[in-house]
Amino acid sequence: MKYFQDINKIQYEGASSKNPLSFKYYNPEEMINGKTMEEILRFSVAYWHTFTADGSDPFGVGTAIRPWNHLQGLDLAKARVEAAFELFEKLNVPFFCFHDVDIAPEGATLKETYQNLDTIVAMIKEYMSTSKTKLLWNTANMFTHPRYVHGAATSNNADVFAYSAAKVKKGLEVGKELGAENYVFWGGREGYETLLNTNMKLEQDNLARFFHMAVDYAKEIGFDAPFLIEPKPKEPTKHQYDFDVATGLAFLQKYDLTDYFKFNIEANHATLAGHTFEHELRTARINNMLGSVDANQGDTLLGWDTDEFPTDLYSTTLAMYEILKNGGLGKGGLNFDAKVRRGSFDAEDLFHAHIAGMDSFAIGLKVANKLIEDKVLDDFVDQRYSSYSEGIGLDIVEGTTDFHKLEAYALQLNEIKNESGRQERLKGIVNQYLLETLSRVTV
Amino acid sequence: MKYFQDINKIQYEGASSKNPLSFKYYNPEEMINGKTMEEILRFSVAYWHTFTADGSDPFGVGTAIRPWNHLQGLDLAKARVEAAFELFEKLNVPFFCFHDVDIAPEGATLKETYQNLDTIVAMIKEYMSTSKTKLLWNTANMFTHPRYVHGAATSNNADVFAYSAAKVKKGLEVGKELGAENYVFWGGREGYETLLNTNMKLEQDNLARFFHMAVDYAKEIGFDAPFLIEPKPKEPTKHQYDFDVATGLAFLQKYDLTDYFKFNIEANHATLAGHTFEHELRTARINNMLGSVDANQGDTLLGWDTDEFPTDLYSTTLAMYEILKNGGLGKGGLNFDAKVRRGSFDAEDLFHAHIAGMDSFAIGLKVANKLIEDKVLDDFVDQRYSSYSEGIGLDIVEGTTDFHKLEAYALQLNEIKNESGRQERLKGIVNQYLLETLSRVTV
Amino acid sequence: MKYFQDINKIQYEGASSKNPLSFKYYNPEEMINGKTMEEILRFSVAYWHTFTADGSDPFGVGTAIRPWNHLQGLDLAKARVEAAFELFEKLNVPFFCFHDVDIAPEGATLKETYQNLDTIVAMIKEYMSTSKTKLLWNTANMFTHPRYVHGAATSNNADVFAYSAAKVKKGLEVGKELGAENYVFWGGREGYETLLNTNMKLEQDNLARFFHMAVDYAKEIGFDAPFLIEPKPKEPTKHQYDFDVATGLAFLQKYDLTDYFKFNIEANHATLAGHTFEHELRTARINNMLGSVDANQGDTLLGWDTDEFPTDLYSTTLAMYEILKNGGLGKGGLNFDAKVRRGSFDAEDLFHAHIAGMDSFAIGLKVANKLIEDKVLDDFVDQRYSSYSEGIGLDIVEGTTDFHKLEAYALQLNEIKNESGRQERLKGIVNQYLLETLSRVTV
Amino acid sequence: MKYFQDINKIQYEGASSKNPLSFKYYNPEEMINGKTMEEILRFSVAYWHTFTADGSDPFGVGTAIRPWNHLQGLDLAKARVEAAFELFEKLNVPFFCFHDVDIAPEGATLKETYQNLDTIVAMIKEYMSTSKTKLLWNTANMFTHPRYVHGAATSNNADVFAYSAAKVKKGLEVGKELGAENYVFWGGREGYETLLNTNMKLEQDNLARFFHMAVDYAKEIGFDAPFLIEPKPKEPTKHQYDFDVATGLAFLQKYDLTDYFKFNIEANHATLAGHTFEHELRTARINNMLGSVDANQGDTLLGWDTDEFPTDLYSTTLAMYEILKNGGLGKGGLNFDAKVRRGSFDAEDLFHAHIAGMDSFAIGLKVANKLIEDKVLDDFVDQRYSSYSEGIGLDIVEGTTDFHKLEAYALQLNEIKNESGRQERLKGIVNQYLLETLSRVTV
Repeated sequence: MKYFQDINKIQYEGASSKNPLSFKYYNPEEMINGKTMEEILRFSVAYWHTFTADGSDPFGVGTAIRPWNHLQGLDLAKARVEAAFELFEKLNVPFFCFHDVDIAPEGATLKETYQNLDTIVAMIKEYMSTSKTKLLWNTANMFTHPRYVHGAATSNNADVFAYSAAKVKKGLEVGKELGAENYVFWGGREGYETLLNTNMKLEQDNLARFFHMAVDYAKEIGFDAPFLIEPKPKEPTKHQYDFDVATGLAFLQKYDLTDYFKFNIEANHATLAGHTFEHELRTARINNMLGSVDANQGDTLLGWDTDEFPTDLYSTTLAMYEILKNGGLGKGGLNFDAKVRRGSFDAEDLFHAHIAGMDSFAIGLKVANKLIEDKVLDDFVDQRYSSYSEGIGLDIVEGTTDFHKLEAYALQLNEIKNESGRQERLKGIVNQYLLETLSRVTV
Repeated sequence: MKYFQDINKIQYEGASSKNPLSFKYYNPEEMINGKTMEEILRFSVAYWHTFTADGSDPFGVGTAIRPWNHLQGLDLAKARVEAAFELFEKLNVPFFCFHDVDIAPEGATLKETYQNLDTIVAMIKEYMSTSKTKLLWNTANMFTHPRYVHGAATSNNADVFAYSAAKVKKGLEVGKELGAENYVFWGGREGYETLLNTNMKLEQDNLARFFHMAVDYAKEIGFDAPFLIEPKPKEPTKHQYDFDVATGLAFLQKYDLTDYFKFNIEANHATLAGHTFEHELRTARINNMLGSVDANQGDTLLGWDTDEFPTDLYSTTLAMYEILKNGGLGKGGLNFDAKVRRGSFDAEDLFHAHIAGMDSFAIGLKVANKLIEDKVLDDFVDQRYSSYSEGIGLDIVEGTTDFHKLEAYALQLNEIKNESGRQERLKGIVNQYLLETLSRVTV
Repeated sequence: MKYFQDINKIQYEGASSKNPLSFKYYNPEEMINGKTMEEILRFSVAYWHTFTADGSDPFGVGTAIRPWNHLQGLDLAKARVEAAFELFEKLNVPFFCFHDVDIAPEGATLKETYQNLDTIVAMIKEYMSTSKTKLLWNTANMFTHPRYVHGAATSNNADVFAYSAAKVKKGLEVGKELGAENYVFWGGREGYETLLNTNMKLEQDNLARFFHMAVDYAKEIGFDAPFLIEPKPKEPTKHQYDFDVATGLAFLQKYDLTDYFKFNIEANHATLAGHTFEHELRTARINNMLGSVDANQGDTLLGWDTDEFPTDLYSTTLAMYEILKNGGLGKGGLNFDAKVRRGSFDAEDLFHAHIAGMDSFAIGLKVANKLIEDKVLDDFVDQRYSSYSEGIGLDIVEGTTDFHKLEAYALQLNEIKNESGRQERLKGIVNQYLLETLSRVTV
Repeated sequence: MKYFQDINKIQYEGASSKNPLSFKYYNPEEMINGKTMEEILRFSVAYWHTFTADGSDPFGVGTAIRPWNHLQGLDLAKARVEAAFELFEKLNVPFFCFHDVDIAPEGATLKETYQNLDTIVAMIKEYMSTSKTKLLWNTANMFTHPRYVHGAATSNNADVFAYSAAKVKKGLEVGKELGAENYVFWGGREGYETLLNTNMKLEQDNLARFFHMAVDYAKEIGFDAPFLIEPKPKEPTKHQYDFDVATGLAFLQKYDLTDYFKFNIEANHATLAGHTFEHELRTARINNMLGSVDANQGDTLLGWDTDEFPTDLYSTTLAMYEILKNGGLGKGGLNFDAKVRRGSFDAEDLFHAHIAGMDSFAIGLKVANKLIEDKVLDDFVDQRYSSYSEGIGLDIVEGTTDFHKLEAYALQLNEIKNESGRQERLKGIVNQYLLETLSRVTV
């Protein structure tokens, strides 16, 4: 306990507390429908943003003041592991996530990189043996190093494909070693800068070949964690192949990969693709493809991935609504793929930010749960679509009609009467639930 | 010849002509690789924008000065047919397209609507018998009338589903009657305004049921035109289910409809979805799903469908590049789903606009063809991906490797060497081809 | 009381009420800092959206079911006045706003248009004599009619300029007659479609000439209501000259009009310009130019003016924060320039929508007021800028230093120490205030 | 001549040349209206993108292969100067631009930073004495170092204000020493991340105070180069105070700074603000505020500053149209604030990119000049606004009318007749000029 010694253990103190460093709404032990909040929300800390990132942006160098800033190489990597488990404990989070390069420095050769990884993975395993915090997922960073300048599994350079295969092979082994609940693929450079120099078909075929080989290897070593694709439409690449959930789904179907993959859905990636966060969650949910969530938020007036900590309660409520409707996240979780602002450079801000995010999802959970309990939206929706429960509507749903019968039916219709969608009323109700759920629950 | 009597027949006069109402670059008889320009480009006039639209926008009523503005009902419908074939002849276009309500007014009942349609369809057939202009595609407008306020095939109201089925049934019959080359589905209201009141899964299931019934009926009546889905991400709907080509492809695969559908790709819809026009064309092409094209352009600094006539020569060149690489458009064509600006309200502007659009695609065709003839991009791309033609790359493509072999290969690699993507050089070359192809060809 | 007879008078019943048609949070008589909520919020109904609009959009005709739909011409205009005052009373709103063409139909000639206006203005005056509801502002619609196709005061056609002058002259007279608190200018067509055909300097010079003549005429007739420019960046025009507050301010300064104009700021116009609502309010506030507010919200994932009723409590809170900091709205108000969704077509939805909007701003007011009372942000901001209260910072602010002295000071500085901006913490606090202000206040 | 020894001196070889490393369209000595292309275009190389940048992006480290990559500190700085003048000569460019930190490393103290700067400035002065290449402008980087995390002249920390003053003081001295034609201010961090912690009025007041002190100091040392503000709406800051030209103009007017400042307009910043490049140029031009140009291009489908080399000929043509109409750039120039793509990492790409950009502006110049010579747009515009040259229109322009006279005039008008804006025709003509100007000129 040396990196964040000034930060007292974060405790649930309720809304009346004046202590800025405590949860106001997140109480891990509180029961919601037979499960604890902790079991439902499955919060995870993102290693890269919290222990590796430095606050740099395209126009400025790092600003983050971190207790390990003076270290380098493996010493730095080890300090970060110590700090990480200290922060996990203070925040009392059940999960964390990492890319390979987050935890251990790349070596001069792939072999040396493996050795560095092995050293740190052993250390992490040791820490995990006495910690409650488990590995939600790990992944391979195949976008930072210059070798990935033209992609990894979609590189025009077969050597890069091979190198990437080795990285994922190792990643699967590490995942198995540390008991990862999932394994994630984010293809930040799997796309193109310009079609003028791109063989898009070959690149996508190769990506599918890569995934099949990964599936085969995971089976071989008995690592049965779900594979998750994390869609993002662009940035750094001009166009990324995993644009959004629907695009990923088209790809997985085409290449016969739907049995092995689900989606890791990020709020900010959704909005960059022109969708709401809840749209992406719904799309995945109704296709049984909701795997896990990167819990952050973007700024829709900015055109890049701001990766802010999630504080918008509409977004957390509607996200939790989809997640509860999905029967929870299964082996997935809510991973804070979020970074403190460049101007929030104190170590203390790491805690403020996680508390803000965890509280916001705790509120979202309660409000969404109450909306579902009271069947506020369900009743409205059921009534709205009730014409498909009988008569011609039921025939349609049951597949017992055709264009002849439907035309005959339509010809005898008088004026068709629709009913208002009541959008404004529903939004007013959501506000009411947002404002009143907590007072009703906590009083 | 009475509606556009001041407009002389439009002819190819070459770039030196001072006549503003003549093609400068489009010469329908000019041969490109064994086909005439007309055969390759397959231009089509959009009935709605050119004969039905009035220049209104959400903040203003119509401005268009049209020779038929004083008429109403079926008289108006008939005048438009006469005017249409006059314009087709003057512009010498081989195709046109329409929605049902463009050509004939809706009646008080569906039966009366059918009768109106029959009257005008007979008239059109008569005109077609002596005209070169054929029907590229027809479709049913299922978005303007209030009954479609919550969708058509995805309406929450089964009566609306039935009514829509009758409309498409009739549309397929009309298509067969007039020898349509394709049949199009644009689902302007097939989507949602808010997830709060929406059963997205039922709506999408119903849409698939609708499509299957349409397929069955077309088979039944022996109408074998390809079915085309026209993706658009939004507007008027907050979210449209056929968001883009990839989303449409996911849907078609999921519901086993890929054998019957291709895509009708619109430039402005592509940019609204965050893609370039050529991206959508490429995506369709490499999936063998490129059906037809709605040739227009948007304004990427505006967030709505501006449906401008296409004049951006980069866009027409890159579009024609994809189309030529596709082996042409098959039964599809280049339909000008484009409207004159509200301020371009003279009938004469209809001709200026079509000439600008047709010339722009003629230029695009010539430049793209020259780029392909000279293998400018092909050679670069082939060289760029040459690592997949031998050694480990060939093993990858042929599926004869796995993560073990790839890792072994990667472990013995020294520093991986990539080659520059040369984007700036390629853009310079495209400029050179744009500026010099025509002078080289025409001199 | 005949148009909305099924709608009972809307009453404040508090959050526990099960009555869907009542305010839950807005209580006009509740005191906040010595004023009633009604006096602070100064709500206004927008005549056009609520009594004139029909739910049409660029892809569909009207859907609105209104009790006056069967009427035409002056009869329709009169029925709307009756309905309007019925709705004003039921909603208990203190203000309304209109464009000239909202209240009376245009005649065949300008003279006839004047006569129609006079008839309805007299009728409105009569109703106002027994109603609490006053006129927040009126304006002239100079964008719907085809004559404004190229602009009004910025038209290339001097006849249109003259006609527009006549409209505004009449508008100022109507404003005076009805005791309007303000007079608004929204230049929907004052801009350009393409620079290729536009003399931008002449158009802007003419706009300034127009405004000066309006100022002169208002002085002449003794109408001393503030003039308000309503910025919007685009739509329907490709580029509108009053892009945003800052652009409007540049214009007013250049043409020496700052003494006569303030801004009417609309939330949705702010986001279309790439700003937050609160940014535009702040910009106006610190320049003493905050006149009035068009209270609505947009959808930042859509690129057009959706004019939704405001329900986002973050937005209403931050807006009310700026308004309270401004010392209130003065003669301005919160005008619901908002329309029910096309799918919310019942008359009842007009009430649901206004209630949702009024409740949302009532909540925003309470939360903002509490944030200010507790000096939550003020204390943080004061501390953050405290370096300007002494030493070199005070010299800077007081203008007693120069580059020589500053350089000398800088040369002797050691490492400069900044303090965290604490953005995440502040966002968490705003959430806490949002959730707890009402329970603290109402319990 | 050692850094780019494989690159032969770039010469104009005309369009038929097969040499990829030669100008095809830019011929510095070619006369256009009595001036050489070089004199009109005043091209400038941006030191930061070409000699300092490394191809890194937020998701990846640098890729650029540069002959000076092995060096560090002052050795690196010196090597870059040598390389710069080698590149300037090969490209035959008349100007370059730099930020202070581009040319010399920051020292441990401000004093040491000054010393480093003095060393390199002396070296540059020496090189300039035998080179044709002059300094278009210099500026101070006040955004990269952590001290600017909350802004420079708008920082909440007065020490940072003072430090920034010292930097600009030195920058003005360096500008004078090297004969800079202009001095630029780009306020990358002069804005805010969140209004929650921001005193916007104090920050803007301080910025004005800073500018006044800079003006005073420049006068004191007799450095009479125009000061240029470079607007950008956002990135890295959430909101930047110099949002666009109009916003900058509002600021300069408010703080009485219009006599000393003009604008440096960047294409990509224009599109990020929602404007076309030509809009920003036009806005500056008609306010006599067009100072200089950062010649690049963005990708309107991406939401960040891509700083691509300019190759879009529409953009270069319309930009040159505004510049020629402005009577040229005066002391300004066309500075390539553009970077090679991360995938274009060879030193050779620096040449391909500059050639593509310079050729593109050369083409734009020729096409724009021909459009002006032929009065293609001027005649159309003059005719379009001719109603302001006589009668009531002339009265309006001359200020001899008022609302009374205009109303009287309007009341006797019959139907007002407008004329088509002919946008499609004008776009077709621009295409024709684009395609034919060069063949006409060069043949």
